[in-house]
Amino acid sequence: MPENFADRLSGMIADRDTPTCVGLDPVYARLPAAIRRRYEGKPGANPAAEVDAIVEFGRGVIDAVAPLVPVMKINIAFFEVYGGRGIDAYLELVEAAGAAGLLVIGDVKRADIGHSTAAYARGQLAGPRRPDAVTVNPYLGLDGVKPFMDVCREEGKGLFALVQPSNEAAREVQDVRLESGGTLAAHVGRLVNEWAGHESLMGVCGYSALGAVVSPRDVASADSLRSILSRCTFLVPGYGAQGQSAERVAHCFKKDGTGAIVNSSRGVIYAYENERYAALAGAGWQKCVEAACRDFIQDINMVLGGSL
Amino acid sequence: MPENFADRLSGMIADRDTPTCVGLDPVYARLPAAIRRRYEGKPGANPAAEVDAIVEFGRGVIDAVAPLVPVMKINIAFFEVYGGRGIDAYLELVEAAGAAGLLVIGDVKRADIGHSTAAYARGQLAGPRRPDAVTVNPYLGLDGVKPFMDVCREEGKGLFALVQPSNEAAREVQDVRLESGGTLAAHVGRLVNEWAGHESLMGVCGYSALGAVVSPRDVASADSLRSILSRCTFLVPGYGAQGQSAERVAHCFKKDGTGAIVNSSRGVIYAYENERYAALAGAGWQKCVEAACRDFIQDINMVLGGSL
Repeated sequence: MPENFADRLSGMIADRDTPTCVGLDPVYARLPAAIRRRYEGKPGANPAAEVDAIVEFGRGVIDAVAPLVPVMKINIAFFEVYGGRGIDAYLELVEAAGAAGLLVIGDVKRADIGHSTAAYARGQLAGPRRPDAVTVNPYLGLDGVKPFMDVCREEGKGLFALVQPSNEAAREVQDVRLESGGTLAAHVGRLVNEWAGHESLMGVCGYSALGAVVSPRDVASADSLRSILSRCTFLVPGYGAQGQSAERVAHCFKKDGTGAIVNSSRGVIYAYENERYAALAGAGWQKCVEAACRDFIQDINMVLGGSL
Repeated sequence: MPENFADRLSGMIADRDTPTCVGLDPVYARLPAAIRRRYEGKPGANPAAEVDAIVEFGRGVIDAVAPLVPVMKINIAFFEVYGGRGIDAYLELVEAAGAAGLLVIGDVKRADIGHSTAAYARGQLAGPRRPDAVTVNPYLGLDGVKPFMDVCREEGKGLFALVQPSNEAAREVQDVRLESGGTLAAHVGRLVNEWAGHESLMGVCGYSALGAVVSPRDVASADSLRSILSRCTFLVPGYGAQGQSAERVAHCFKKDGTGAIVNSSRGVIYAYENERYAALAGAGWQKCVEAACRDFIQDINMVLGGSL
């Protein structure tokens, strides 16, 4: 039996002594000038060169952060723009991040039903050159997620189901109140926590290989979802560029400091655009990324205090 | 200004005199033996050859059905299994179906938020070699769909938002009753119909470029959603292999016979597996596909009767 994903994650968090994740959302126009200059051209002028530049950038970010954080999340949306070549670049970076010792989450937000969702589960999660975990959309119910759960059990992989994203407009769907009480997000949270207890997904660490994406949009909903989703590790988006404070993010953890990993994407990977790290720019853009990653880790670990 | 997608769709339906759509969900193991023999091998043994076989099959299906139906839906899930090569094959078939005169729906069920969903919208819907419309998941609210709506307006493209899929387990999310009355599916339906009225998406035909995926799981929900989503063309899954009858499907149309296109995937594209068409197999698998497509069209048109 492969090791349970939640146990692998828990071990990695202990090893790096921080429950953090760096998100790779690469946009060509924002890559370091030093890279763009070599691949040259205006954005859109040469898609093949842009993909090569993104791969070089991604490898540079991996080198900078792999010694520091346990997890990297790679968002496939930014690769799909480039068709097949883009997907191959995504898979190349998934593999490179894994080879550098990171657990890799593919942020793919897939879900369909029946044989289609089974195809997504195989295509996105099963086998070599695929991430250790992916994000999924629970809107289609258990059928949409079940084939992914099967791959998790067979291959020691993991999932994060979208329960509460960070955008305000999601409220028009997720904050609707149900006749039976509570919000839709809470209802979906209860379903996901129930699924998380199925199918030999539970690790010895007490968490399931099926986790949840939960943004602490407000303290009350974060506390409520933390209590509902007792079996699930939270993947917490929205730190940094998306404006969530470390204090609010702290509500996604249990009292013992377990139960969540916090993601920062643009605040870390584009740190060379930030005045705060300007003094380091002479030593190369990766130094800025590394410094921003250390600051991110410090912010999160400080709020968690002695509990980790 | 490019022509509105709903108007293009309406024109195509009138031209072919049928509101039907053939779905391409290609699985290598089910391809005609005549094709598999040439590309040889057990499923999984040679992924590159499987992709080539799938492209040949897809082109054969396109040739067989393009003179008969107005729309083809291609499901990207079955291509993602093959990584970048699979995506290039998907895009090749999207282009081939368009060149054969079909409107093409990319069944991609994407949604994210912020700059990620903008990247999906560009990657999946904008520009050449991309389908005329895609399916999207409304679970993240307007933010998840808005960048797709922008592409629709700029390029005359379309969307179908998942409102009520055909699987039973979706009920555990979509049939929950809200404090304000009605089900979640009805609430999402009202949101989608509201979005459909925005942003210059309305065509002169009276429908919006933003449609909805609605399965007639039961007559009552189909009638209710048909009334709520007055601006939206329904893409109706579940006919044939998924077990929806033509009679039930009829409830997805308005009284004047407009407002829906009905999809059949496996019942048409794998017709050579069906005893009913065995007599035609000697003339080649495409003859079986063509005959099944004609039967599908006849079933749907008969139920709609004189209203078309």
